[in-house]
Amino acid sequence: MSENISYTEAAKFLKSHDNYYILIHSSPDGDAVGSGYGLCFALREMGKKANVLCSDPIPEKYEYIMKEYEPQKFANSCIISTDLADTKLLGKATSMYADFVELAIDHHISNTGFAKKLVLDGQASSACEIVYDILKQGELPINPLIASCLFTGIETDTGCFKFECTTPRCHEIAAEIIRDHHIPFASINRTLFDIKSLERIKLEQRVMEGLRTYLDGKCAIAAVTLSDMEITGAAQEELEGVASLPMCIKGVSVGVTIKEKEPGKFKISMRSAEDIDVSEICRKFGGGGHIRAAGCTLEGDVDSVRLKVLAAIAPVMGIDLWLA
Amino acid sequence: MSENISYTEAAKFLKSHDNYYILIHSSPDGDAVGSGYGLCFALREMGKKANVLCSDPIPEKYEYIMKEYEPQKFANSCIISTDLADTKLLGKATSMYADFVELAIDHHISNTGFAKKLVLDGQASSACEIVYDILKQGELPINPLIASCLFTGIETDTGCFKFECTTPRCHEIAAEIIRDHHIPFASINRTLFDIKSLERIKLEQRVMEGLRTYLDGKCAIAAVTLSDMEITGAAQEELEGVASLPMCIKGVSVGVTIKEKEPGKFKISMRSAEDIDVSEICRKFGGGGHIRAAGCTLEGDVDSVRLKVLAAIAPVMGIDLWLA
Repeated sequence: MSENISYTEAAKFLKSHDNYYILIHSSPDGDAVGSGYGLCFALREMGKKANVLCSDPIPEKYEYIMKEYEPQKFANSCIISTDLADTKLLGKATSMYADFVELAIDHHISNTGFAKKLVLDGQASSACEIVYDILKQGELPINPLIASCLFTGIETDTGCFKFECTTPRCHEIAAEIIRDHHIPFASINRTLFDIKSLERIKLEQRVMEGLRTYLDGKCAIAAVTLSDMEITGAAQEELEGVASLPMCIKGVSVGVTIKEKEPGKFKISMRSAEDIDVSEICRKFGGGGHIRAAGCTLEGDVDSVRLKVLAAIAPVMGIDLWLA
Repeated sequence: MSENISYTEAAKFLKSHDNYYILIHSSPDGDAVGSGYGLCFALREMGKKANVLCSDPIPEKYEYIMKEYEPQKFANSCIISTDLADTKLLGKATSMYADFVELAIDHHISNTGFAKKLVLDGQASSACEIVYDILKQGELPINPLIASCLFTGIETDTGCFKFECTTPRCHEIAAEIIRDHHIPFASINRTLFDIKSLERIKLEQRVMEGLRTYLDGKCAIAAVTLSDMEITGAAQEELEGVASLPMCIKGVSVGVTIKEKEPGKFKISMRSAEDIDVSEICRKFGGGGHIRAAGCTLEGDVDSVRLKVLAAIAPVMGIDLWLA
């Protein structure tokens, strides 16, 4: 298990080592990218050598970060990680470093304790929030580029300050970053939340067209089949956020998205707005997650999968499926 | 013209009068509703009598505010306004009060100075931001209900902290409100930004299907005809925010929405992401607005209106329409 250390101890650690490899999880999201590269730029600003290592390519929308990054050439002597809950999430290209992580900076309460030292705050919205406070408390450098990176993860993990996980501290950091570093936040927001590829737009249309409500309108189910992906030309990475679409219908308290991953094999994403614990429903199918966002995998065809899901949700809502 | 007064002077004014009618503009948005009712609840909390007057019904999504409101019975002795730039915007039912406004609280730099006294901050994101700071500086009451109202206007006017007009102060207020008043902000956000009627969803689908890009993909135009409204069953008030849809396409720097208001008469909304001044383009057609959001009215049929708009936009982008 890891030794838990404080923010100021983490800052001291960062000052006293050099030649960093920073690991982030595969299929990187805004928090992985923002915390990894934000920390990397801060270390370089301190005169250290640092690279970020990720098994997957960084999605194109983070180009405003990536255009400032060039890998440096050096032999690593200190491996750290950000936003990484489990070394299983490293992916192929970086899994060889799994057993040698000196310091992990994370906000997942489920962190497996793979690193020698761990800075963990399960209440923090994002790893970026923690990296920001480590830099701030340790009086380490923050410039507009670093601020833009850290802003990115706070934004993506809170849905632009929309979700339950948004803390007062998120807003305070946003206020400081906008006031002190004048980052082009509106343009970053547009890139992160508004701009969609034509393929994604077409896919959303198909998903919304096929969306149906059940159980007195309290449950909405959307399906994305392999044929939908093929017809619209959308890539797998463009499915991000699709799981929230069923929740946009008024009166819906459980939203389900059925995504066909391979013929006859479906990834189920469940979201809930109210007090319905969707992680419990998903656990029945061997999945899991959080109260308001969970997932599992089911096999069959779309119609049978839809029925299985409804049969599991109905009793939780106190509805008799055969009468509904 | 109005006498400009400070936030603390406004707080003193509110303490020293009673029996308030608070006017807000017709077609009320989140900032009008939030600032009007937020101030009303604060005045009632101070032991004053206060009502909000609006010529139009308050949209259903603000039910979480309206369920706490009952009009009181009293003869008014002090008329004030929030978020009202011009008494022309009062609408029929409240226009009789136009010449008797004692105090106006506003963030529109274009405020016509109709009130005897005016608290104006053109840098503030919203009237709600100003009302919050008046209450705070004057040590007037703020409770969770008042905080929820004021949060509403900051949210809607900044697009949930997304737009350029978001100030560090917006984030600071959000941090204070979440920390001090524990409002159900995530549920409010879902109501304000995510939930859509089935009619609105169908309308968006039609709009997106008809969306086309022009001028090397830098301009996108969407059209909403009276027949689209009829087929989808969407009401006029459900068109809110439709003008931002063309901007979601990658590479688009000017987004145009053409809305048919009556047969052959179109309201044009233009949005720009970059440094293109759309208010200048709209002014050519007798309209106006801000650099990045403007509008005008045009007559004809959809195709001729589309061409007129493109002919005006192309030269501003340095593109020859006949070669494009």
